[in-house]
Amino acid sequence: MQLKQMNVDGARLRSTIDAFAAIGRTEGGGVTRLSLSGPDLQVRAYFRSCCEELGLEVRMDDMGCMYATLAGSGALPPIVMGSHLDTVVKGGRFDGVLGVIAGLEVIRTLVDYGIQPRCPVTVMNFTNEEGARFEPSMMASGVLSGKFSKPEMLAKRDAEGVTFGEALSASGFEGGEENRLREAAAYLELHIEQGPVLESEGVTIGLVDCVVGMVCYEITVRGESNHAGTTPMGMRRDAFFAAADLVTELRERLGELDPELVFTMGRVNVYPNVHTVIPDRAVFTVEARHKDMEVLAEAERIIRELPGSAGGCEVSSVKQWARDTVRFDSRVCAAVSESARSLGYSAKEMASGAGHDAQFVASYLPAAMIFVPSVRGRSHCEDELTSYEDCEKGVNVLLGAVLALLGETGEASVH
Amino acid sequence: MQLKQMNVDGARLRSTIDAFAAIGRTEGGGVTRLSLSGPDLQVRAYFRSCCEELGLEVRMDDMGCMYATLAGSGALPPIVMGSHLDTVVKGGRFDGVLGVIAGLEVIRTLVDYGIQPRCPVTVMNFTNEEGARFEPSMMASGVLSGKFSKPEMLAKRDAEGVTFGEALSASGFEGGEENRLREAAAYLELHIEQGPVLESEGVTIGLVDCVVGMVCYEITVRGESNHAGTTPMGMRRDAFFAAADLVTELRERLGELDPELVFTMGRVNVYPNVHTVIPDRAVFTVEARHKDMEVLAEAERIIRELPGSAGGCEVSSVKQWARDTVRFDSRVCAAVSESARSLGYSAKEMASGAGHDAQFVASYLPAAMIFVPSVRGRSHCEDELTSYEDCEKGVNVLLGAVLALLGETGEASVH
Repeated sequence: MQLKQMNVDGARLRSTIDAFAAIGRTEGGGVTRLSLSGPDLQVRAYFRSCCEELGLEVRMDDMGCMYATLAGSGALPPIVMGSHLDTVVKGGRFDGVLGVIAGLEVIRTLVDYGIQPRCPVTVMNFTNEEGARFEPSMMASGVLSGKFSKPEMLAKRDAEGVTFGEALSASGFEGGEENRLREAAAYLELHIEQGPVLESEGVTIGLVDCVVGMVCYEITVRGESNHAGTTPMGMRRDAFFAAADLVTELRERLGELDPELVFTMGRVNVYPNVHTVIPDRAVFTVEARHKDMEVLAEAERIIRELPGSAGGCEVSSVKQWARDTVRFDSRVCAAVSESARSLGYSAKEMASGAGHDAQFVASYLPAAMIFVPSVRGRSHCEDELTSYEDCEKGVNVLLGAVLALLGETGEASVH
Repeated sequence: MQLKQMNVDGARLRSTIDAFAAIGRTEGGGVTRLSLSGPDLQVRAYFRSCCEELGLEVRMDDMGCMYATLAGSGALPPIVMGSHLDTVVKGGRFDGVLGVIAGLEVIRTLVDYGIQPRCPVTVMNFTNEEGARFEPSMMASGVLSGKFSKPEMLAKRDAEGVTFGEALSASGFEGGEENRLREAAAYLELHIEQGPVLESEGVTIGLVDCVVGMVCYEITVRGESNHAGTTPMGMRRDAFFAAADLVTELRERLGELDPELVFTMGRVNVYPNVHTVIPDRAVFTVEARHKDMEVLAEAERIIRELPGSAGGCEVSSVKQWARDTVRFDSRVCAAVSESARSLGYSAKEMASGAGHDAQFVASYLPAAMIFVPSVRGRSHCEDELTSYEDCEKGVNVLLGAVLALLGETGEASVH
């Protein structure tokens, strides 16, 4: 066998990407497929028909996750590839769906080459990764990994008051708990980077060795609301000015901590938010991410050490959430790395700054991720873009890794 | 005649304040009397009944302003006192209404003492000073002074889509254009300070010689919205961080300009305002006020000289509005000042940082204002407070000024 010479079908991959992008397409060239909405059900049906055409068995679990499996010749744990088909509102044509299409294309290629693997090979679609219709994100993988309570998730409501459980029941994609992803030789997720690093460094493949830990605080500054015209500057307790000072202090101190630390103050609200009234309250979030938990602990210390008062205002902070860095499985990572190397693609080890289903899967199964470049680092928007060429290279790396892992788990037989 | 010994009836004034405060009273002890709403019509009817009981003639003009007049013995221009009965939502018991009650109490006192003045003495209620239901504020005085177009004002809509014109027609308080305030020997407005200066300096009476000029800009910062986890700090164009730098720069430079300059950034909005997304847009207002137009011009120059780009973001500024400082009439101011001095009350010359109907009236009639202390500088809120004692002192100053002006315009005859 000369498995290393196998390649995916680039033209087929391209037309598959286009076909999936046509479902829920927006005027601006993106897609909107909120979880379990009409377009999501449509894309699920299309995905199922693609898999069934290929002779795969398609099952659903009790969270609506889809599993399409190429049977193995032995009773072994499967190699699983996957990601998600749902998107945010006016999302892009690559985030999530690329990982599902990649898995489909890998299996198509195995079938093309007449390979019947000893262990089953599965491509998955995780339900509600985005959390754009029902919070939280990564809902199904959270339940599968035991991080989230299923009854709580079923009770989550969308903006119209529909519960996730109701939407799931009505979807036709509710399956049995016995179909859940429970064991696997490996879980592999190809995803767009959603950041600018690969493109700016001219690197094709991101060898993702971890998903960074993060911490998020909400800072509230309380001052006094008075008339903007009648209150001398020295007698003000302006919550926004006090908040601005805290923002400056936080930026300086967090900025000095580590060059790889990222931090964002993305939500900022000032009250009463009237141009002629001195703000009596300002609330902002500060969220920091780093793969080294010690750096993250230091960032958290800086946030917690904010003074209790500033500019005559009271300052309080509440931890919103935190998550530890998730390290991927070294054996699966090595298979990915070796696949990229043997294909001659430029590659670099990197952390994922965004959350993915793979991080929950990694808590109980050997997992890894592959990144391909995002043009201008854009994602979750209509102009999200990864070139077809980069997509193809990413899928070839995935194929190579799957073949290598098949080689480890037992012989794949080529007919 | 020993006019200086006349005083208003403090107990009556107190009960009048309480009676007006009962109309539109909120649970929190404030009042809500949006212009031409039910509670405003109720307070107008009550005011009219008080005036008619006193034998005054009550007229309305075509903007719904009310004029209650104690006839003069000669055909002379009136001395006019006034303010407004409308309030913001959950406003206080003193802003506006105190100036109307004060005029009523002054006329009651003239009647008590059997004084028939040679010139008429009028107490006014201006329609829609607050602009809380129909923008802009000071609507009626703006029309009377020719600053605002009446047809444009009639077309203004409230949040329910009702036009000012419709509300006025339905109110029963629409009168004729011939009743508008056109001439006056003097216009006097007693008002709460709405700031903390008098209270903090232990002064009872504010001798208001001007309403400060102001300028307001809206600053927009446009960056790029990217994923908070995947975008390295050096590759961000964070609109909020750029805005925070501009805020710091503006505060420093405006703060150095003049100790009496007040400036506020009361409206701040960040987009998309999601904790995990780098903001691509931040918009904030900067509003500055000062009585010296040269200082204000300097403040405006600082705002206009903001750089066109900051932190990789584009910066643009749009002037929202500006108004010049309005100086009050020196003769009317002198009458107020002399009245306070002869009563032995502590007094200081000051500027009004807030806008008032008097500033529009001052553009065509000799006008002045009197301030009384606001506890903690609070206004436009339910805990707005001026002590009854200070109210009484303010009304006595108004009475003394009216008597002095009556003395100038002709003999007042005491029966």
